[in-house]
Amino acid sequence: MEKISRTRIVDLIKREDFGAIVNVKGWVRTRRGSKKVAFIALNDGSTIYNIQVVADPTAFDEETMKLITTGACLSVNGVMVQSVGSEQKVEIQAREIEILGKCDSAEYPLQKKGHTLEFLREKAHLRLRTNTFGAIFRIRHNMAYAIHTFFHQKGFIYFNTPIITASDCEGAGEMFQVTTKNLYDLKKDESGSITYDDDFFGKMASLTVSGQLEGELGATALGAIYTFGPTFRAENSNTPRHLAEFWMVEPEVAFIEIQENMDLAEEFIKYCVKWALDNCADDLKFLNEMYDKELITRLEGILKEDFVRLSYTEGIKILEDAIKGGHKFEFPVYWGVDLAAEHERYLVEEHFGRPVILTDYPKEIKAFYMRMNEDGKTVRAMDVLFPKIGEIIGGSEREADYDKLLNAIKERNIPMKDMSWYLDTRKFGSCPHSGFGLGFERLILFVTGMANIRDVIPFPRTPGNAEF
Amino acid sequence: MEKISRTRIVDLIKREDFGAIVNVKGWVRTRRGSKKVAFIALNDGSTIYNIQVVADPTAFDEETMKLITTGACLSVNGVMVQSVGSEQKVEIQAREIEILGKCDSAEYPLQKKGHTLEFLREKAHLRLRTNTFGAIFRIRHNMAYAIHTFFHQKGFIYFNTPIITASDCEGAGEMFQVTTKNLYDLKKDESGSITYDDDFFGKMASLTVSGQLEGELGATALGAIYTFGPTFRAENSNTPRHLAEFWMVEPEVAFIEIQENMDLAEEFIKYCVKWALDNCADDLKFLNEMYDKELITRLEGILKEDFVRLSYTEGIKILEDAIKGGHKFEFPVYWGVDLAAEHERYLVEEHFGRPVILTDYPKEIKAFYMRMNEDGKTVRAMDVLFPKIGEIIGGSEREADYDKLLNAIKERNIPMKDMSWYLDTRKFGSCPHSGFGLGFERLILFVTGMANIRDVIPFPRTPGNAEF
Repeated sequence: MEKISRTRIVDLIKREDFGAIVNVKGWVRTRRGSKKVAFIALNDGSTIYNIQVVADPTAFDEETMKLITTGACLSVNGVMVQSVGSEQKVEIQAREIEILGKCDSAEYPLQKKGHTLEFLREKAHLRLRTNTFGAIFRIRHNMAYAIHTFFHQKGFIYFNTPIITASDCEGAGEMFQVTTKNLYDLKKDESGSITYDDDFFGKMASLTVSGQLEGELGATALGAIYTFGPTFRAENSNTPRHLAEFWMVEPEVAFIEIQENMDLAEEFIKYCVKWALDNCADDLKFLNEMYDKELITRLEGILKEDFVRLSYTEGIKILEDAIKGGHKFEFPVYWGVDLAAEHERYLVEEHFGRPVILTDYPKEIKAFYMRMNEDGKTVRAMDVLFPKIGEIIGGSEREADYDKLLNAIKERNIPMKDMSWYLDTRKFGSCPHSGFGLGFERLILFVTGMANIRDVIPFPRTPGNAEF
Repeated sequence: MEKISRTRIVDLIKREDFGAIVNVKGWVRTRRGSKKVAFIALNDGSTIYNIQVVADPTAFDEETMKLITTGACLSVNGVMVQSVGSEQKVEIQAREIEILGKCDSAEYPLQKKGHTLEFLREKAHLRLRTNTFGAIFRIRHNMAYAIHTFFHQKGFIYFNTPIITASDCEGAGEMFQVTTKNLYDLKKDESGSITYDDDFFGKMASLTVSGQLEGELGATALGAIYTFGPTFRAENSNTPRHLAEFWMVEPEVAFIEIQENMDLAEEFIKYCVKWALDNCADDLKFLNEMYDKELITRLEGILKEDFVRLSYTEGIKILEDAIKGGHKFEFPVYWGVDLAAEHERYLVEEHFGRPVILTDYPKEIKAFYMRMNEDGKTVRAMDVLFPKIGEIIGGSEREADYDKLLNAIKERNIPMKDMSWYLDTRKFGSCPHSGFGLGFERLILFVTGMANIRDVIPFPRTPGNAEF
């Protein structure tokens, strides 16, 4: 076969130099036709669109034609011509076809169209070859690049906080243990406790649940940092919203207080949504048609208005008024309660009809590191609540005062062993600073309109599932 | 104090509108002067350069002036004036000074200049506030962004392969186990083996050593992907080149063979080095002066010439000739040997004087997934060897033939339990594909000229060390 350099389909479908000889490579999505003409829809992952390859079966040997089945991988040399029959302006009249990899129809699991998402989850290594997952993972890529670009342009430093940690001050009960110990020969001390001197790090170690505390070290030295890496929760929840392994984005910024932190969060998420609309139009159009007819409208809606900014206390009042007005919630509403998803969605979807940033939560339901308000009851927390998703961002201004921070730690009986490094940020040249965390997969759920978080990460890790 | 919006020092030092009233915030690096005038060098992490704040001590209260010590955090309002005394064109005549966070000289460990890198490693949470580590982590950020930009522009998809894996086909002996089991009550089966039905994933799980195999799933569906995430080796090596937790970049590309893979690797790494020279000039200049006088020359050298492309067999000949010519190596040289660092450095630094891509290694010293050459003895591996660093990239064309791949697996007795998903890529629409891995910290070592890998990642994990 003549060697012609490959053109990606995403580039080919934009060309208009009909008559050119081109090479495309890709996987057969469908094949139809007759004895006189074969129409082969080829996809190479570069776009949601297939290129139509038209072949005269009599011009190729029988064996080649037989191997052109769904899933097979082909290299095609041919003439680029204007298309009348296909959905694209361009198609290829095949001159040479090489079978790079055949695909046995009897064995290939993605033979037919219209598999359920549940079925495809079992075949996560092959679902990447479907329209849906091609679209999702191209969008996921774009969101990651948008995030890096947003922060880079603002002068933030990408800061890799550790994945393995020996700190246990946050959510110790829900952490994965990391060890090289021989479990058949566990050393114990006199009191019967397992000892860790012989473990890899010389102490008990776990997978991080957040890079924030180390991120604060970065921000109070480099000015503004962000993390973007995997985090872990060993929570036994089998829901469409939870993963044991997920990616978090955590900016942390010196010299900003809660107001600028809200500004940053709103600007940030609007930037991501706008990026998707600007750069992923074809994939969004597909998902809008196939899964969620409101998707594009919802994304555009995010850009139109300022987010509502509301204190928790005001939020509770609105919810109480709703109850008085006859609205029924499953869970109770009172000042001090941790809001349930139904409450958040009521505020966002029914009361305001746009995203809400809820601030100044009761200290009892928020983390120790949040800055105490002057009322002594609430802290400078901020949760960004989105339609369909609920909380998409959680953040706060951090407590910058050494004594107040120590007090918050004591009140909560948090084990601060080995945490003097964190307190040092408040001891040596402390400064006001703020930050927030975005669950990356939550963002992808919102932007793709998918309903299950297992469908927006290539190989989901959930209780009982670590396949691939 | 009057509220004026903050100017970052990196922006301020470029301004020429002298007379403007500005606010800067940052940490005191040094303070000198007399009773009549105080010179305060302030740094906010945005640049290697400090801004000089000039204050008349008699114009401020005594308490404020006393608290302006090394490490303290200040907010300064003042007039931007042309500087004569400082290294910058701009300095600030202070009008108002607020102490955001004091810093007790008796306790602050980074009081004096000139601490050793070893000492600073113990204080990794504070070393971020030094010139050296500010420079390193700004460069690290830039390299990460350069990598994302390079691949984004080429249409690659950022693909998050799993961190927790239940596959054990690669380097099982050097993996960290991940578990939620109660180590005090380990369930065992009749034969005495620990059972994992009650572990979080229902089977034994570990931290990934590479995203490549899952990356191949991505590439053979989406066309071209890259990973960029943490990987782990539970290797008990305490060397300046090894970390237990490090970041890897692993592009994987459908439809390219070994030659284009080499082209991609060379273009990629030159892009990163050029980015550093173009965007990190100030930080590189600092590191060049303080640590490695050849640094910038070495970086520029990378861009000048094509990398040498050489087969392993030719490489062995050159090394054998060197021995004949009187060169002494510590380790023996013969066809089939795994090259030692001294051999690689001889080729790069002494024989060719530029980077070398060594290819076509004996199959016995390379991984099972590399494409077999027609000689039946060598595989299409490629290692990119750099001055000072040795191997900075390792990659290969992958074996795309199902039977040959299965054969390679059998020859090596690799446990392929639960690995049918990997073989499926060769079963269903296989295609030629290639990829490589870049150890991100190796790149940062090269670009910063630092000698110890612990100094180019914020919080290094090594045997016995998981601090912060």
